[in-house]
Amino acid sequence: MDIETLADGFDRRDWQEVEATDDPVRFAMIGVGWWTREQAMPAVANAELCETTVLVSGDSEKAEAVAADSETVEHAITYDEFHDGEASDAYDAVYVVTPNALHLPFVETAAELGKAILCEKPMEATVERAERMVEVVDEHDATLMIAYRMQTEPAVRRAKEFIDDGLIGEPVFVNGNMTEPILELVPDPDQWRLDGELSGGCAVMDIGLYPLNTARFLLDADPERVRGTVASVDEAFDDVPDEHGAFQLDFPGHVYAVCTASQNAHMASHIEVLGTEGRVRVEPAFYPWDDRALTIERGDTSFDVSFEQIDQMEEEFEYFSHCLLTGEEPHPDGEHGLTDIRAIKAVYEASETGETVEL
Amino acid sequence: MDIETLADGFDRRDWQEVEATDDPVRFAMIGVGWWTREQAMPAVANAELCETTVLVSGDSEKAEAVAADSETVEHAITYDEFHDGEASDAYDAVYVVTPNALHLPFVETAAELGKAILCEKPMEATVERAERMVEVVDEHDATLMIAYRMQTEPAVRRAKEFIDDGLIGEPVFVNGNMTEPILELVPDPDQWRLDGELSGGCAVMDIGLYPLNTARFLLDADPERVRGTVASVDEAFDDVPDEHGAFQLDFPGHVYAVCTASQNAHMASHIEVLGTEGRVRVEPAFYPWDDRALTIERGDTSFDVSFEQIDQMEEEFEYFSHCLLTGEEPHPDGEHGLTDIRAIKAVYEASETGETVEL
Repeated sequence: MDIETLADGFDRRDWQEVEATDDPVRFAMIGVGWWTREQAMPAVANAELCETTVLVSGDSEKAEAVAADSETVEHAITYDEFHDGEASDAYDAVYVVTPNALHLPFVETAAELGKAILCEKPMEATVERAERMVEVVDEHDATLMIAYRMQTEPAVRRAKEFIDDGLIGEPVFVNGNMTEPILELVPDPDQWRLDGELSGGCAVMDIGLYPLNTARFLLDADPERVRGTVASVDEAFDDVPDEHGAFQLDFPGHVYAVCTASQNAHMASHIEVLGTEGRVRVEPAFYPWDDRALTIERGDTSFDVSFEQIDQMEEEFEYFSHCLLTGEEPHPDGEHGLTDIRAIKAVYEASETGETVEL
Repeated sequence: MDIETLADGFDRRDWQEVEATDDPVRFAMIGVGWWTREQAMPAVANAELCETTVLVSGDSEKAEAVAADSETVEHAITYDEFHDGEASDAYDAVYVVTPNALHLPFVETAAELGKAILCEKPMEATVERAERMVEVVDEHDATLMIAYRMQTEPAVRRAKEFIDDGLIGEPVFVNGNMTEPILELVPDPDQWRLDGELSGGCAVMDIGLYPLNTARFLLDADPERVRGTVASVDEAFDDVPDEHGAFQLDFPGHVYAVCTASQNAHMASHIEVLGTEGRVRVEPAFYPWDDRALTIERGDTSFDVSFEQIDQMEEEFEYFSHCLLTGEEPHPDGEHGLTDIRAIKAVYEASETGETVEL
């Protein structure tokens, strides 16, 4: 790859054909927590191809207050009202961002109502419920995308382009980490992420899936088996198995990924692929508020690549809306998300049994 | 830790009391391959407290030629002559740097002759032979140090000082890698590193032990159990199980280390400890020809620390010689080295059985 291509040739939106519309995709936000208010809604407001028209919340007052601050929101309804089909003429798609174990019923209702679905990752709290989600979507021939924002993140897409172009030779290892002090970020000991029933798991489930899924995306492959250990040490994590987790994924062709994740550690995130001829590293990688940076090494030469930072959520909503407007099938789909749930649950099983778990 | 201490307070040789001597430790180099000629002998020549006086080789002509180029070497003898005690008045200590599976007999003879021993890592090719080495040394009350040059490397010692001072809080994860294209570095398909009998293992044994041992040094702890996978794909590695290897070490207190090593990949090396409050990373870390660099992160602040590069082998020989001159017991000893051999062999067992192996 020449420097000109490196600088000019990258098209962060190689999927884009339509850049404006008079008929934007109208979203119902299901769940109106801080992520919806501070990340998703501003992203949709900035995007060209979509808008937020409906808020669905367990807390009517909160939803009304947020709606009052928005120029596009027409309805603020309750979860029950959503399931009753209220205001269903006012939105084309839903963004499901409730606690993990509550995703399925909203996806079911949306599919029954004929709405397209963007569902946050992990897609559900158990393998069974994730499988059921895939079935429901199939039964209704609905459109489901799992919201892996790394797959539309330019730093990661560039890294993948370098790998696909053979710049690092054949991949040998992936090394990934995501760690944060969750109780400093969200200072609430009763938050759902620490509730095993609602979350389905903590460090590995909530953030370990970033290195896991990004490894899959960069390698364009799925893991064959996993091994690892998880542990909860601090009593705040008594209800979940994994305050911390470390795991290894065996990919086809003897490519190994080693990953770490913690909800009670210094905030850091990276993903790296090391190959026979070089390596590519994105660090910071996964937090939307950190400027992403990319380093490529080949032989004795190393490049630090910096570039315009984009809003990861805007990129993701724009891509999903673009698919709906053009009739393209969006990726990653439910089957793709299900593979992660199976791998994550296999990490917990591997930790309990001490054995390698085949996928 | 204040910046003044960071800049002025580090004493890379906190062990040093004696800086010069009229009676340097005289070394017999056992094995006269490129490492001895290009790394060990120049380091000893530059050091203040030791000198090379004897060369022991399987190849008399090579040894004679190397001896002729040296100002201090008095004798070039064969392996058999060494075992017969020839020239034993001309050296005080031996540096054993033969293929792994040949270390034991030289250590045995040196111990019988009352010589101090600096033995390259891994100390031997099997657990049994490593155990026997520890016994032999005990039987003769000999002095044995295993040549882990990372433990006298200033970048690593600084990293340890930061960790010990609590700068990164409590350690949570260690992340380490060492990879190289061995057939480009040593373009000989018949080299001993690819011979399972002589080496006892390839990627994990030869270079995986760098992240393994440096993790132990930085944490001041030994692993309790291991899991992992190794594989040989390229036919050049048919005689060893591990062209590539990935493994996880569980340290006490649920501290997990994830490590990768390959003898057929892009050259790279790093070690990082991530804690509850920050992290410390040495990269490059393990190759003597790469300038080592240290990064410390605490909260939102990151420091890149650069400093004078030293000759790792000179540092190690000087430390060992200093111990002999002052009557201090050098570290790391044979028991310390044996822990690595057990852990490495457990990685191979874990890969074969798919199970976690207790240490």
